[in-house]
Amino acid sequence: MISGSTVTKMKRQQTLINGQFEQQVSVLNRALQYGDGLFETIAVVDGQPLAWDRHIDRLQAGCERLNIECPKPSQLVSESIQLCGQSKLAVLKLIVSRGEGGRGYQPAKSMKPTRIFSLHDWPDYPSDYQKHGIAVSVCKTRLGLNPSLAGLKHLNRLEQVLLSQEVSLAQNPEGLALDIEDRVIEGSKSNIFIVKNGQFLTPSLDIAGVAGVIRGKILDICKASGLLCGVTTLSLQDVLNADEVFLCNSIVGVWPVLQIADAAFKTGPYTQKMQKQLVSESMIVMS
Amino acid sequence: MISGSTVTKMKRQQTLINGQFEQQVSVLNRALQYGDGLFETIAVVDGQPLAWDRHIDRLQAGCERLNIECPKPSQLVSESIQLCGQSKLAVLKLIVSRGEGGRGYQPAKSMKPTRIFSLHDWPDYPSDYQKHGIAVSVCKTRLGLNPSLAGLKHLNRLEQVLLSQEVSLAQNPEGLALDIEDRVIEGSKSNIFIVKNGQFLTPSLDIAGVAGVIRGKILDICKASGLLCGVTTLSLQDVLNADEVFLCNSIVGVWPVLQIADAAFKTGPYTQKMQKQLVSESMIVMS
Repeated sequence: MISGSTVTKMKRQQTLINGQFEQQVSVLNRALQYGDGLFETIAVVDGQPLAWDRHIDRLQAGCERLNIECPKPSQLVSESIQLCGQSKLAVLKLIVSRGEGGRGYQPAKSMKPTRIFSLHDWPDYPSDYQKHGIAVSVCKTRLGLNPSLAGLKHLNRLEQVLLSQEVSLAQNPEGLALDIEDRVIEGSKSNIFIVKNGQFLTPSLDIAGVAGVIRGKILDICKASGLLCGVTTLSLQDVLNADEVFLCNSIVGVWPVLQIADAAFKTGPYTQKMQKQLVSESMIVMS
Repeated sequence: MISGSTVTKMKRQQTLINGQFEQQVSVLNRALQYGDGLFETIAVVDGQPLAWDRHIDRLQAGCERLNIECPKPSQLVSESIQLCGQSKLAVLKLIVSRGEGGRGYQPAKSMKPTRIFSLHDWPDYPSDYQKHGIAVSVCKTRLGLNPSLAGLKHLNRLEQVLLSQEVSLAQNPEGLALDIEDRVIEGSKSNIFIVKNGQFLTPSLDIAGVAGVIRGKILDICKASGLLCGVTTLSLQDVLNADEVFLCNSIVGVWPVLQIADAAFKTGPYTQKMQKQLVSESMIVMS
């Protein structure tokens, strides 16, 4: 476990493109032309990427769904080591694009993927967010319904860009995103869990949303520990009526939710226990 | 009107990025990171971009919806002239990205957009497609529903990439895309019109699809000429029962549809008249 007092912030920003230190890509790259690729955002502590296997598993599953050739895991390991070095605390981002090609949606039959690793400063969220919780707004922008892309951490992220602008205007650290049929799906950059009568519940992401690595780990922890959990449909009212609410992702870890609109919550025991468990398994970091 | 016999194909591929001849962009460009931008695909004949005002109008409307600073039209005119030169027949693509920024969905408050103009070879579709028509398949991949992005020619185009791969496998020049609620929306790279009892009908694009420039022009021609037209909901059965069906975009012009699954069509008089009108108004080119 890394505490805020022992970390040194990253100041450099470095990028490895297909194994070379570069900062630029061809305008023909399909990530730029069509958002044709996937990405992972990974916490790095003392040179070690957290939840690495889960990130790579998700990347491979995403590549399979989009019919993108996935880079070899061994290559990704070696490049991540090269880039992370001895970083005390940093964000490692990996983009895998389908590759470079000409104009037109249809990709060439054999296309070499582009691997873009970049190392970024750890964001300076107040440590209070993790310890005591946050207020969240409910976004007006609604997520679309898209079974063929739902769950994937793909590069088509205009919805999240729109949501993030709303969240910024509301001056809260995060906002809730509902879909066009009024289901609560996720935060603008995080997944959501509620706890109700001792059960962890999180929205199904079959038609909208990003299946986060920490969300997946929480579901696995529940199963392994015999904790009640469920993947289901949640209305805003379900969330407002919950005993506890928290948001999670690989970088923010677990943010307890203290307030949504007029509804107030306390940082409850289930949230705190899960946060502690994730830290002890080196899935998230308390910064 | 430019006929196939008088054109010379473009062989170069040139790119102007923010007014400079360059081929590369920073990996921090938000088009690459999130598909955070818009694009236009424009036919160029004898150095002249066709339907220029319509393309720029759509770009401006898109920038407004996504809260992206739109480049000045005068700047776009001057750069397009610089790039098109004396091209006999070419495709001009313009990407406008929100700009370059750090990690995270939320854009910086003042962000300078990136203009990427590129000139490409004219695609070598057989001239038969325009003259006599094509067979189209019905894609299994379904379009999602997304009112906040529908209609826009934005850079989040993974759906079209998936559709284009299906179309390629089916070995047809184009395929029909239905949404997840079984409405016919468009082709993988084109808009669709049917003609039924003398009326032009095209799907509403309020919750899915790209509002094509040629589609817009056809609707305007109908209104100006007193032709019956309507923007509506179309089922596959509506399309199969039509008297005429055609697909359109800025590059292919108008492709009459001869066959969809087991249903056969003829290139009818309404389609031919519209195609002729679009050519005479220099909106499309018969190549």
